Amino acid sequence: MGLLNCISPRAVAASALLLTTLAQDVFARPSPEPKAAWIRKGPAKKKMANTLKRAVEGQRRATELESCAETLTTTTTSKKVNIWAPLTDVETAGVVEWLFAQEDLNLTTTEEATSWDNTITLVEALWPNKTDALAYLDGNASTPTKYAHVVLNHRASEDPYYVDLLVGPVPVNNETTTWEPLAYPLTKKNGGKVRNLDADSDALYVEWLYVHSQSIADITLDLWNGTALGLENDTLDIWGIDPLWQDDGRIIRWDTYWNLPSDDFDAETLLPLGLYFMSDVTGRDISQWKLEGWLYNNIFYETTEEFRAAYWSEGFVKNGGNIEGDWARTDQQGPILPLDTAYPPVTIAPAGSRFAVDAEAKYVEWMDFSFYLGFSRDTGLALYDVHYQGKRVLYELSLQEALAHYAGNDPMQSGTAYLDTFYGFGPYAFELVPGYDCPEYASYLNSSFYVAETSHTHINSICLFETEADFPLQRHSTSKYVSVTKNTYFVVRSVSTVGNYDYTFSYSFFLDGSIAVEVRASGYIQSAYYANNEDYGFHINDFLSGSMHDHVLNYKVDFDILGTNNSVQLMSLVPATETYAWSKGKTRNTMKLERSFIETEDDGRFNWGANSATQVLVVNENEVNKHGEYRGYRVLPYTGTAHLTVKNSSNLGNAARWAEFDVQITKQKDTEPRSAHPFNSQDTADPPIDFSLFFDGEKLRDEDLVLWVNLGMHHVPHTGDLPNTVMTTAHSGIQLTPSNYFDYDQSRRTVNQVRIDYDNGTATDVVTFGQFDVANATCALNFAAVEPNLAGYQGDIVVRKFPFDPNNPYFETESIV
Amino acid sequence: MGLLNCISPRAVAASALLLTTLAQDVFARPSPEPKAAWIRKGPAKKKMANTLKRAVEGQRRATELESCAETLTTTTTSKKVNIWAPLTDVETAGVVEWLFAQEDLNLTTTEEATSWDNTITLVEALWPNKTDALAYLDGNASTPTKYAHVVLNHRASEDPYYVDLLVGPVPVNNETTTWEPLAYPLTKKNGGKVRNLDADSDALYVEWLYVHSQSIADITLDLWNGTALGLENDTLDIWGIDPLWQDDGRIIRWDTYWNLPSDDFDAETLLPLGLYFMSDVTGRDISQWKLEGWLYNNIFYETTEEFRAAYWSEGFVKNGGNIEGDWARTDQQGPILPLDTAYPPVTIAPAGSRFAVDAEAKYVEWMDFSFYLGFSRDTGLALYDVHYQGKRVLYELSLQEALAHYAGNDPMQSGTAYLDTFYGFGPYAFELVPGYDCPEYASYLNSSFYVAETSHTHINSICLFETEADFPLQRHSTSKYVSVTKNTYFVVRSVSTVGNYDYTFSYSFFLDGSIAVEVRASGYIQSAYYANNEDYGFHINDFLSGSMHDHVLNYKVDFDILGTNNSVQLMSLVPATETYAWSKGKTRNTMKLERSFIETEDDGRFNWGANSATQVLVVNENEVNKHGEYRGYRVLPYTGTAHLTVKNSSNLGNAARWAEFDVQITKQKDTEPRSAHPFNSQDTADPPIDFSLFFDGEKLRDEDLVLWVNLGMHHVPHTGDLPNTVMTTAHSGIQLTPSNYFDYDQSRRTVNQVRIDYDNGTATDVVTFGQFDVANATCALNFAAVEPNLAGYQGDIVVRKFPFDPNNPYFETESIV
Repeated sequence: MGLLNCISPRAVAASALLLTTLAQDVFARPSPEPKAAWIRKGPAKKKMANTLKRAVEGQRRATELESCAETLTTTTTSKKVNIWAPLTDVETAGVVEWLFAQEDLNLTTTEEATSWDNTITLVEALWPNKTDALAYLDGNASTPTKYAHVVLNHRASEDPYYVDLLVGPVPVNNETTTWEPLAYPLTKKNGGKVRNLDADSDALYVEWLYVHSQSIADITLDLWNGTALGLENDTLDIWGIDPLWQDDGRIIRWDTYWNLPSDDFDAETLLPLGLYFMSDVTGRDISQWKLEGWLYNNIFYETTEEFRAAYWSEGFVKNGGNIEGDWARTDQQGPILPLDTAYPPVTIAPAGSRFAVDAEAKYVEWMDFSFYLGFSRDTGLALYDVHYQGKRVLYELSLQEALAHYAGNDPMQSGTAYLDTFYGFGPYAFELVPGYDCPEYASYLNSSFYVAETSHTHINSICLFETEADFPLQRHSTSKYVSVTKNTYFVVRSVSTVGNYDYTFSYSFFLDGSIAVEVRASGYIQSAYYANNEDYGFHINDFLSGSMHDHVLNYKVDFDILGTNNSVQLMSLVPATETYAWSKGKTRNTMKLERSFIETEDDGRFNWGANSATQVLVVNENEVNKHGEYRGYRVLPYTGTAHLTVKNSSNLGNAARWAEFDVQITKQKDTEPRSAHPFNSQDTADPPIDFSLFFDGEKLRDEDLVLWVNLGMHHVPHTGDLPNTVMTTAHSGIQLTPSNYFDYDQSRRTVNQVRIDYDNGTATDVVTFGQFDVANATCALNFAAVEPNLAGYQGDIVVRKFPFDPNNPYFETESIV
Repeated sequence: MGLLNCISPRAVAASALLLTTLAQDVFARPSPEPKAAWIRKGPAKKKMANTLKRAVEGQRRATELESCAETLTTTTTSKKVNIWAPLTDVETAGVVEWLFAQEDLNLTTTEEATSWDNTITLVEALWPNKTDALAYLDGNASTPTKYAHVVLNHRASEDPYYVDLLVGPVPVNNETTTWEPLAYPLTKKNGGKVRNLDADSDALYVEWLYVHSQSIADITLDLWNGTALGLENDTLDIWGIDPLWQDDGRIIRWDTYWNLPSDDFDAETLLPLGLYFMSDVTGRDISQWKLEGWLYNNIFYETTEEFRAAYWSEGFVKNGGNIEGDWARTDQQGPILPLDTAYPPVTIAPAGSRFAVDAEAKYVEWMDFSFYLGFSRDTGLALYDVHYQGKRVLYELSLQEALAHYAGNDPMQSGTAYLDTFYGFGPYAFELVPGYDCPEYASYLNSSFYVAETSHTHINSICLFETEADFPLQRHSTSKYVSVTKNTYFVVRSVSTVGNYDYTFSYSFFLDGSIAVEVRASGYIQSAYYANNEDYGFHINDFLSGSMHDHVLNYKVDFDILGTNNSVQLMSLVPATETYAWSKGKTRNTMKLERSFIETEDDGRFNWGANSATQVLVVNENEVNKHGEYRGYRVLPYTGTAHLTVKNSSNLGNAARWAEFDVQITKQKDTEPRSAHPFNSQDTADPPIDFSLFFDGEKLRDEDLVLWVNLGMHHVPHTGDLPNTVMTTAHSGIQLTPSNYFDYDQSRRTVNQVRIDYDNGTATDVVTFGQFDVANATCALNFAAVEPNLAGYQGDIVVRKFPFDPNNPYFETESIV
């Protein structure tokens, strides 16, 4: 099974209902074919979907015209192979089987493994090097040889480690397939290895956290009438900082208590209890681990005995707990709003999809844009080989890493700086809710990820849709005419819920050649216990602080403007005092433009200028337009951006140097494909990828460049973040927009504009330009908004890969917390 | 006739077609009533509209259910009088008649006036002082006494001036009505007067510009095969800088040549020709005016003779002209885009409007928001008395002024700094195009303005609509459930085309209590002739520079957070190195919050902080929530902002000091209602309102505060601005969002959310919360998207006020250029 399984967008648009029914139906009838029928039966699905669609439409209106949707060519065929495609089901199973056959790897299946066995953490396609990719895409080279990227968790050792391997060629072949360390994309020169601080995670709870929690059960019962002992009836939970402290050769963790929600609402991160304990967990011999102390109400106790003595002594100040309630639940509450029970406005697609997808190649065409989709465990959805009007504009546009850096007066908040690719954006790109996350009429694609000898498929986890902005793209009025153009745009979206937070990732394409990259956050905040920490957040509930934190999300923006030889020009509006040939010797206070080029990587890291006064232009100095200006694209903030407030974070060390500036530019190298590594948290001083090491003074003019651009939000949650953060303000985005790239605005090409000439109270001419003529339509528009079938929501489908068992898929969804 | 005439939103939503037909129909049948029937017949229109609507629906589907739209209460009654309402038709006519009867004013009608006669420039309602307004709104006081704001153009003098007058009470009454200078809102203490630099505008062309243009007709014919002589067959136009130079007691103007477009496209600002001349036009005696020289190709010639001698001498370098062509026309051009002739996605309102309007009072209610609309000649649409959940949040939210400051190597661009209220946003708030500027189903209102003894009404120039964002407001996923909320929001919009530029002004309201204030720009750029000015713009066409300029738009944001006693708190995220009770003496690199209050007006002017790190919070220090946090609203950039790049502009003097910072805070005073005056350009050194004089050290804590916040864009037009600037990147906006104002997110109140519980591949529960149930509907939704009737576009309706002639309206639309 592929990582990204496309369901025909027409079929999906026609009926979300049918797809689900079909999938369930097929599950109920085991099939003898080598692949599960729900994967294989694309054409059948489509046929059935269309049948249903026509039936439904027939009920709605009597028409003898064919549906307009049927007249559109919404499938296409990519001219090239998608070289960012996932491994197929069979390829993945082959690699897994081959790995288990390599005795020197000494692998155990996840199910059978103890914490002293080696397991496979990841098997997925390795993206080709850009060098090889371009040779194929632009030249006569054959497709780059396919390799698998494998991650092993090597725990059969006193010094456990993760290691990245290169396995291939794929499909495996016992003659030619080999494995070797996948070290070249890493700055850490250690054979692809990084230590694993998490090797004893099972024992951590059973043999350490619950043991110490047991030792103060008298206190937790007294404080909160609960215990955290690893038992069914626990009402408390324990978890702690990420990354672990890694100073002085020791590995230190701080953990804290949380109330467990009593129902299914995921409110635990709103229920901190304010008791913390510190452990030295260096090494694998738990008998050598050391409890370093307890913290309560900002008083540190070096031992459990000291804490207990203080606790039961007179005058000990006990604070209250944070208790779940409606304040922490997302369901409707409060008086119903006026007219809100009436059906709200909704966007529909009366002619069906106006874009084309090659489902097999995961290739998309909308208007003058085309691109391939990629999907990976670490970073989820990515766009490759983005063409506009037949020319590549972007080789790659992809999330690299997302940081959530907290701060606080307590060690839990102070010590938290999540690097989310450790958890992965792929595994948590859950099924989207049609009509809510995306329009009902959107086309939905699946995505898959590998875990524990299985692949999980998130049904309908990527959506593609065209929609209309609430404002036009262009307009102009005079006393004689008005000219105005619709602002129809195209969106590709996925949502990853990494624990408490839901990141909605959107890539939007506009008729003028612009692209917007946006993230919007919702979900539960991670809060702090409110005590002595007013400098770190608002007091938002009983004993609750809206813990201040920075979100920073790094994107790789690999422009290729008319080839790979590009430069970055800065152009600033600056105040100026000037005299002119005509100013008769007088000075004038005015402004002018100052231009410069980023010459080398030494100047390659900077922030957006004050007062938005500096344009960042990616240009091809060899390609000027007919007026002599460099053709290029401009990169600019859109709906807010931010970089990390913290300087030289004690939590992060060198693990997230990419978060330090707004814009960072490097020379493109096959050895620097990513700015971050999912295991950077495991060795913060010397992480697998230390982004700052990319900057070694290389020339940046007339070179193949990569811009690493940060989106981000400073978040100081207030009461409006309860129960969930809302997307009204929790957003960040950048735009990529043509700058002198064309001779004129390309949105002039759209027919969905009008010019109305008018005079003396009458429209004398309504000039359309070939836009769909409703009055004289020769096909039937479907104006009915289809109610999303929310009962079809089903969660993840899992297929076992070792032993390979494609015909017995089952449902299982996993989330964090 | 009122300034803002509301057409029933239901009627409009039902059929834009009908309204226009009706209006035309009524125009064709003169009526004996004292008011034109097209104004009066609201109920009849509504009835007919509904009849048509039902007929249309009947054709679409057979149903016996009543339309859902009919079940909604979309009309409401304001509890208070709209004290920002315009004068009625009769009141305006009465004031005008009364003014002409005041012999000491020595007025002449516009039609009969020479440049040495006094005329009426403006008659409109004077907004009440806030002190009086609050006494009425919140207390037992009666409505504030109604006054007219009158502007006279006093030209019967060697020193012509404009003067603001206060006339009232209104309706006029010969016993009690008086006039006096309206001086208290001005910082200039001059009896409401400001000099008029434009008194001889007619003579300027006939007796000056065309005369000098005639003197070089040989040159213009040689250069461009054209002349500018004020004749029918002129192919050239002349116009110049704004404001005029006002140094050393002299009034200096620079003018330049432009090609006139040969068709109706408004492309003149794209056709500069690069020849400039300077005139000293001090005083009213044109014989004393002096031609100061010519400029061509950056060479200054002190006299016409010198210029001519040089021109006809050998080696004189002649540059080409800018010639109209398809590159300057907005019509569709270029190959048609794939699938673009298919009907694009469209937003519909199947249940009709979910908001309520009191058409008479211009009062609007949407969900928990309510507000009044105001409309004025200078600044167009404004919002007053914005309540949320029954409490006033904003007393006023209104545009104050818009600056477009250019720069260049030539005196035309260098000398241009348009202050657009001089032209007015009201007179150019043209009719909106349904389906393009706003959804077809929007409710449209009219707006009116006074000019030359007439009132002009822009039909359908304000739109109100609810729509759905393409992303949700809230979501959260786990392995057991997903919760997601629709992001339905409400927009009030008008578009003003001030000459070449179209400003789309939007106020958006969100379910979490947030408000967005946005402007998006389109239309034609004002370009420069491209010669020796590469430091001032891109070369975008033959001899064309995309002339660099700053747009800065000042908004008055008069918050009243739980009363008028408010403070502004700044809260910044700052890097910090700290030790903690638990850090064992080690320092940690982290971050924290720093808070401070703006104490006085001395600290009241500042910019948004670097890295978006500083929150600007408007709070009531006396109103803490139950957790002890100040209740308030946060003000923040949304889709980009900017303040003026130029420092101490030679063009502006003291005329636009409001443009110097992003955020400026003053103590609210009845004597400082506006930051700018439309005639600030007439005396830049000592303008009617010098905003910087508002800052006189007054205390800002626990006071009634006004925030003056700038939106803006730095614009360096590139080829993508041809033919028109597009709204993809030309946008600016701020948000006002609750901060600890409520106990929890108020969007939880909406029923348009869903929770889906799922398990083992099945949705086990789809929990809705009272949202409209399509399956069991007891009223009929109308899913048909109504095609906008673009043939109904009609332009302005004019009614003569002196003599008052309400039954003979006629059509006439005027635009700039």
